[in-house]
Amino acid sequence: MRWPGGLSYGGDYNPEQWPDPVCAEDIALMKRAAVNLVSVGVFAWSRLEPHEGRYEFGWLDRVLDRLAAAGIGVALATPTASPPPWFSLAYPDALPVTATGTRLLHGSRDTYCGAAPAYRSAARRIATALAERYADHPALAMWHVHNEYGTTCHCYHAAGAFRRWLRDRYGTLDALNDAWVTSFWSQHYSSWTQVHPPRATQYLPNPAHVLDFKRFWSDELLAGFVEQRDVLRAATPDVPVTTNFALGDWVPVDHARWARELDLVAIDHYPSGTGAVADEQTALAADTARGWAGGRPWLLMETAANLVYVDGRMRTRPPGQLLRHSLSHVARGSRGAMFFQWRAPRGGAEMYHAAMVPHAGADSRVFREVTDLGSVLRRLPVVDAPVAAAVAVLRDAESAWALAHPGLPAPDLDHSGRVAEVHAALGRLGHTVDVLPVGLCTDAALDRYRAVFVPGVYIASAETASALRSYVDGGGTLVVWYFSGIVDETLRVWPGAYPGAYRDVLGLRVTEVDPLPPGSAVELSTGDSAGAWTEVVELAGAEAVATYPDGGPAITRHRYGDGVAWYVSTRLEPAALTRVLAEALGDDGPQPADGLDLVRRGALLFAINNSTVDRRVDVSGVDVLTGAPVDGALTVPAGAVAVIETGS
Amino acid sequence: MRWPGGLSYGGDYNPEQWPDPVCAEDIALMKRAAVNLVSVGVFAWSRLEPHEGRYEFGWLDRVLDRLAAAGIGVALATPTASPPPWFSLAYPDALPVTATGTRLLHGSRDTYCGAAPAYRSAARRIATALAERYADHPALAMWHVHNEYGTTCHCYHAAGAFRRWLRDRYGTLDALNDAWVTSFWSQHYSSWTQVHPPRATQYLPNPAHVLDFKRFWSDELLAGFVEQRDVLRAATPDVPVTTNFALGDWVPVDHARWARELDLVAIDHYPSGTGAVADEQTALAADTARGWAGGRPWLLMETAANLVYVDGRMRTRPPGQLLRHSLSHVARGSRGAMFFQWRAPRGGAEMYHAAMVPHAGADSRVFREVTDLGSVLRRLPVVDAPVAAAVAVLRDAESAWALAHPGLPAPDLDHSGRVAEVHAALGRLGHTVDVLPVGLCTDAALDRYRAVFVPGVYIASAETASALRSYVDGGGTLVVWYFSGIVDETLRVWPGAYPGAYRDVLGLRVTEVDPLPPGSAVELSTGDSAGAWTEVVELAGAEAVATYPDGGPAITRHRYGDGVAWYVSTRLEPAALTRVLAEALGDDGPQPADGLDLVRRGALLFAINNSTVDRRVDVSGVDVLTGAPVDGALTVPAGAVAVIETGS
Amino acid sequence: MRWPGGLSYGGDYNPEQWPDPVCAEDIALMKRAAVNLVSVGVFAWSRLEPHEGRYEFGWLDRVLDRLAAAGIGVALATPTASPPPWFSLAYPDALPVTATGTRLLHGSRDTYCGAAPAYRSAARRIATALAERYADHPALAMWHVHNEYGTTCHCYHAAGAFRRWLRDRYGTLDALNDAWVTSFWSQHYSSWTQVHPPRATQYLPNPAHVLDFKRFWSDELLAGFVEQRDVLRAATPDVPVTTNFALGDWVPVDHARWARELDLVAIDHYPSGTGAVADEQTALAADTARGWAGGRPWLLMETAANLVYVDGRMRTRPPGQLLRHSLSHVARGSRGAMFFQWRAPRGGAEMYHAAMVPHAGADSRVFREVTDLGSVLRRLPVVDAPVAAAVAVLRDAESAWALAHPGLPAPDLDHSGRVAEVHAALGRLGHTVDVLPVGLCTDAALDRYRAVFVPGVYIASAETASALRSYVDGGGTLVVWYFSGIVDETLRVWPGAYPGAYRDVLGLRVTEVDPLPPGSAVELSTGDSAGAWTEVVELAGAEAVATYPDGGPAITRHRYGDGVAWYVSTRLEPAALTRVLAEALGDDGPQPADGLDLVRRGALLFAINNSTVDRRVDVSGVDVLTGAPVDGALTVPAGAVAVIETGS
Repeated sequence: MRWPGGLSYGGDYNPEQWPDPVCAEDIALMKRAAVNLVSVGVFAWSRLEPHEGRYEFGWLDRVLDRLAAAGIGVALATPTASPPPWFSLAYPDALPVTATGTRLLHGSRDTYCGAAPAYRSAARRIATALAERYADHPALAMWHVHNEYGTTCHCYHAAGAFRRWLRDRYGTLDALNDAWVTSFWSQHYSSWTQVHPPRATQYLPNPAHVLDFKRFWSDELLAGFVEQRDVLRAATPDVPVTTNFALGDWVPVDHARWARELDLVAIDHYPSGTGAVADEQTALAADTARGWAGGRPWLLMETAANLVYVDGRMRTRPPGQLLRHSLSHVARGSRGAMFFQWRAPRGGAEMYHAAMVPHAGADSRVFREVTDLGSVLRRLPVVDAPVAAAVAVLRDAESAWALAHPGLPAPDLDHSGRVAEVHAALGRLGHTVDVLPVGLCTDAALDRYRAVFVPGVYIASAETASALRSYVDGGGTLVVWYFSGIVDETLRVWPGAYPGAYRDVLGLRVTEVDPLPPGSAVELSTGDSAGAWTEVVELAGAEAVATYPDGGPAITRHRYGDGVAWYVSTRLEPAALTRVLAEALGDDGPQPADGLDLVRRGALLFAINNSTVDRRVDVSGVDVLTGAPVDGALTVPAGAVAVIETGS
Repeated sequence: MRWPGGLSYGGDYNPEQWPDPVCAEDIALMKRAAVNLVSVGVFAWSRLEPHEGRYEFGWLDRVLDRLAAAGIGVALATPTASPPPWFSLAYPDALPVTATGTRLLHGSRDTYCGAAPAYRSAARRIATALAERYADHPALAMWHVHNEYGTTCHCYHAAGAFRRWLRDRYGTLDALNDAWVTSFWSQHYSSWTQVHPPRATQYLPNPAHVLDFKRFWSDELLAGFVEQRDVLRAATPDVPVTTNFALGDWVPVDHARWARELDLVAIDHYPSGTGAVADEQTALAADTARGWAGGRPWLLMETAANLVYVDGRMRTRPPGQLLRHSLSHVARGSRGAMFFQWRAPRGGAEMYHAAMVPHAGADSRVFREVTDLGSVLRRLPVVDAPVAAAVAVLRDAESAWALAHPGLPAPDLDHSGRVAEVHAALGRLGHTVDVLPVGLCTDAALDRYRAVFVPGVYIASAETASALRSYVDGGGTLVVWYFSGIVDETLRVWPGAYPGAYRDVLGLRVTEVDPLPPGSAVELSTGDSAGAWTEVVELAGAEAVATYPDGGPAITRHRYGDGVAWYVSTRLEPAALTRVLAEALGDDGPQPADGLDLVRRGALLFAINNSTVDRRVDVSGVDVLTGAPVDGALTVPAGAVAVIETGS
Repeated sequence: MRWPGGLSYGGDYNPEQWPDPVCAEDIALMKRAAVNLVSVGVFAWSRLEPHEGRYEFGWLDRVLDRLAAAGIGVALATPTASPPPWFSLAYPDALPVTATGTRLLHGSRDTYCGAAPAYRSAARRIATALAERYADHPALAMWHVHNEYGTTCHCYHAAGAFRRWLRDRYGTLDALNDAWVTSFWSQHYSSWTQVHPPRATQYLPNPAHVLDFKRFWSDELLAGFVEQRDVLRAATPDVPVTTNFALGDWVPVDHARWARELDLVAIDHYPSGTGAVADEQTALAADTARGWAGGRPWLLMETAANLVYVDGRMRTRPPGQLLRHSLSHVARGSRGAMFFQWRAPRGGAEMYHAAMVPHAGADSRVFREVTDLGSVLRRLPVVDAPVAAAVAVLRDAESAWALAHPGLPAPDLDHSGRVAEVHAALGRLGHTVDVLPVGLCTDAALDRYRAVFVPGVYIASAETASALRSYVDGGGTLVVWYFSGIVDETLRVWPGAYPGAYRDVLGLRVTEVDPLPPGSAVELSTGDSAGAWTEVVELAGAEAVATYPDGGPAITRHRYGDGVAWYVSTRLEPAALTRVLAEALGDDGPQPADGLDLVRRGALLFAINNSTVDRRVDVSGVDVLTGAPVDGALTVPAGAVAVIETGS
């Protein structure tokens, strides 16, 4: 069995944690729930290779045989995210070192240095052993390399690899000194050996140094992935290879860049809010994954079946949310819905983590909803049509990382937070949104959109600035928020008034910024309340759409070529933000019903009713879940989902 | 003088901090205050052995002689809680190492590794020297080993001792792997050498690993105590040996287990609240100490005479509180009232710590209250009758430790906090409460109670579950709160719906838990407000006493055998909790007056009026403090205490 | 050019960060803004000595030549605040070590151990090289040694130097043991080798140990400064040598003590508030600097031209504030107004830091205000007359340090905060205030004041206590706040009731303290609200001016000799504090207009209107900024400043 590319349903499956009778029950329950794909072997290294070079594959053979017999495919993991305890003793130099010099020890997961030769070699070896043993196994549907790449290290292996990476990037030490502005604070390097990871130091670190260290780790971890991928590809050219992306700005992985090396983009998404926040986070995660995948299908590889993690608490998912969120992902391009994990474990650090089969067992609301979801997914047709999105929001991992530096004008310049606000506002206006990685922001990519939004994309390369300029010139609508386009890729400020990269297209110059403290606000001329940040904006071609109490422009609009470029110099509260975006888009008609999420893929319309009241959708076609014809209108009950084949 | 076992009164006495004239005044003031026991030599190691193996006992001889002459007994301490500075230089391997690898240095107190051979050997040596020199000293009343055991270490000595302890506990590595569920996250050990203390690691640690490390330290420190105790016992078989327990869940000492090795349980208790909170904390500490002592007398070894520590502030005790709290301890079994410390020091880290003789000297309210207290204690008869308690609350140090793990459904599952709430509610109902260590929870121990309460006792062994089942079956009333009986002693979840250990006796199954964020609440069908935690409870024999807004059971009652088992699936606010407990107990009569604490020991009734109004007590007998007869009723003035001999 | 001693105007200038055309523009802009002094070479070590012993002075030659040609003086810095990266590799033992043992690495600034021989030697060498090369350069106006001294280290070099310092201070180990009260917690030292820096330890450190380590570092860093100063003085006896003081209690530098070694006191002042708070912080910083300078002129060496740092945010300075704050410094004795920095850099950790030429360039409000300020400063006459101040507030770095110890009765006993409150209240009463370092608190120094204020000066030497006693005896008015005069210089409590050092002059004894939690308050008999701290005060000669709800004295007054001593045992809110101070001062007339700051120096009256309304000043003379005569009254517009030559 190779991954058929249909809708996958299942989760992480760890039978090594259970006695045999439980595993027999697992297969029966999977069949009941229509599970067709499970991730096996994640974190199984210490069971597969309990002593260095001595493999124990017997148990895994039995698991895969049993799954194959049941017709369930396997996303077979390489277990390299957690070396076994023996590895720490054999290769202490391959344990990770923190910025303060503490060498971590096994006892959790992910305790290794991704740049250490011993680790990389051991990882290739176990991947090779798995590839050799299971290349022809009928259960093998997909390779799942590693798990949630994202650890860093500050050791001497890391230092050496970092220096090599810097040499590649900058060529000469002079270029590095220039890019990092090492003339500030006497940081000028006169030899490559003086360059180290950003270890604990006396005061603020150099921001370019810190950003390059994150970039380095993204590339170094990627090199480790590629080594494994190549081993697996060589053994099974027809089996797709993926790894599951952990989301979050703290993850030093540039997923957009990684996506090019994967056969299939896969993400782990855990909402951190309840209610509408969780709905919006789900839509944003899915749209982001689709952006990384570049329009190709992608896969939701992990989420929590029965709960969301909110401020350290595991909150129960209300009835129906599992289905709605799963279909929100599928509607936006996911080739299925996978969960961590199949069965809640008896012990361990995450024994209370979400599961499809909770501690209470199959006789539980959770498993009943799991079974229902399986039934729905089985009835959905696979569509390869692209998701229809007319607007795009730019997103940039490097900007998010750079805005975490402590030396900025404000400590809460949170790019991802601003992306979420704009994405949510567009959702309220009824738009399906493409979340476009800045690295894909070419003329060709932009042309297809009615409007492009740039919320706090701090870094702008000359290429990005040029692409956006051309886009507007050619008739596009651009909306730029404060603290976008301030610096180049080396974090050197674009010369002159802010935002150096976009002054011309925006027709203005920002001469001062004044971040506001939390809880304070100013009232704009429009009556809207704004906070967090204000600016002194001087018009140079643009006109003011809203002004601050002192009369200075707050929101501006600039005709540039055949298009229009807006600038928003402050943070609007949600209703005001939605109104401004509607105006920029020319969306002056009635807005869609609150909480009703409509996503179109080719002939399919997904109508996801996240609200607590019934919603009417004007559509004709066939309800693919019930098979009933729909003639002009369909009522989607509160909390329910409908999928309509419109025949178009 | 050997400890007579009467009521002791005094405190820590450190004349080594003062010139001779001050010490002469000390003796005079002690006599004025009726002090009859002082702890001497705690933290005196660097003065007793200023160079390795060179002792200076002269000053201590003079102190003990002077106290003996004044008729004041001495609880002579071994000074092993703080090795001298020379020890750090001589045995750097015996300095403690943190989880991140920092080796601590002297400069405070308690800076040693309790598993280091050099430390253990030095401790035995100084204990032996003291035993030899003072075995026959007339002042010697008691041995006070060490001070507030409770430090840990992560060094290689600790690692070796931890491994030995684990081998003893589990026998085989397979058993350890099974108990710790090391199949999760690739933690499988293939050699004992791979097992280490829980050092800094990449992410969440293994909860069973962490708990066993706490258990190990409790046992390792206990071994150190026993070594000293045996030295002292050999020298003076008739002198009781104790150590003062530091309270608090962060202390890695299982006091219930330690109590078996002590001749006398002694506790240090520092309230952390004011008003009724401090009163309740005092009662709870005393009831807990009595539980550890297993019904035998115990001793309040340290508290603060003139202040309470609240959120980093030293708040003054209001007038009368010193007497009330001291007698609350005595009423509950303490063989006296001892304080840290006698005289406030001129300098040092704790120069503002509480004292019986404050910086202001004897001409102060504090010392006048100290003198009054001495006068009252002198007039109290010693009673050996047990404290009369008809209800018991289970308490479990291991559950408290385990609930501090970061991977739980909520970060505030605080066993001790829940114990305090239930204990306080029972106090409001007029009950004197036994706080029963789970380890003593046998059929025989339970039989004597009308009702037994299990507030968030996370861990349940098969034995505990069986004892509670038998107790209910035999007619007892049991009340179990949420997240009790979830896991076994290895922290593996009891299979099936929660709470696995108690599902049968409670007649229900919990299929989901939903912790609420701080500040949010739900209204139960009874009109009561509940928060912090809610559950999906399915009845399986029990009936609902209160329900959630969605109709699901919140509080249930189950007839089981001849008894009744209640379940409370949420956190009730205090008034509601009190009402529910009254209903469970069948206490439907008038409740006792607010703030009046009545405790009976044999023929003595202690009436402690913590309220601000006079309270009437219906009793006959003799007021032992005034000698006046009491005929049917006694008015205890606001803030006062009466002790009545009832002749029964 | 040697520093002429007139009003200096300029800032830190780092042309090494820019290409040549920018530097040419810099000179033109400096001339436009009337800049006459710039600090050059701060943090330039890695550019001046890119390899050990190989100097590159060419670029600096050109900078100085160009400035000289433009008639702009140079405060030439020794670059020793940041050794180059090569230094870390050559002398790893000279990198600083934290209390937990982490050795820091270059990557920021200030990463060195000030006690390491290799560092001290390298610092002398680069200072010597600069002195030799530039002694006769016409641009040289001043030597600016290092930058913001204030780093510490816990390494073995520091340990050795600390021990030598302690031997000097205490002579014998017995004296040290006595001073530090090492009898507490077994800290008695039996050999000097046992004494170490306060490294990470198990619990609370010894407060005297910690304080002496801060004192040591102040002296050790001073020794490093003196080494450089002597090198520079030898080369250029006529060029003043200074270093810029960083303010803040966390800085381990006793500036009052350092001031004696400087030719000119220079401070860096960054307000941390907005509005009136920033105005008051500015006045306090200037008055504090004048106190350190002992009445001599001093120089504001760094502040932020265009912003203030508030809670991690860079807030824009409102229009006019730059001028008002600059003249507030000048009025209070500053010989000019200097800024960090001249031009905002393109990158680096502080790229968004304030600048006279912001990223937006010269076409900005900021640079226009900078130009205006230059114009005003050029028109101001230099005055050498002392600032007229009739009242003094005592300030003591060591008390501020000591009150940061964790073992105090409250965690918020913040000396500097209390100084600020009293200073602000006196400002509201129209007083210009001398801030007197406790070390200068002699009879002669006190005699000139109507009143002296002692807000939370925790430490009192016998000499200080005696000087204050004589002052009151001779007719002075003294106001002492709670927790003043509690301990001697070794942090040993003065014997008896608090405050031991001042009981007699205050005529009272404090027998208990009761700090209140944040947010709680008590109402005094005067109707005023007080918080944070309360006491039990027993009168012994004093009379109560205000009482607590229980009738106990809260504020007292004591006639002593020919004077009066007040005691304030609690923290008053601002209005109440102002009233009490007015009463103590006998200021019963109309108070000055709110926000109008009047400072007199000889014949000049500075009238700084910080308010938002026009203010009238009754004065005659000549407005030196406009040249217009003033006849009896002058209206100072809202937010403006006038300087009037009164001819007196």
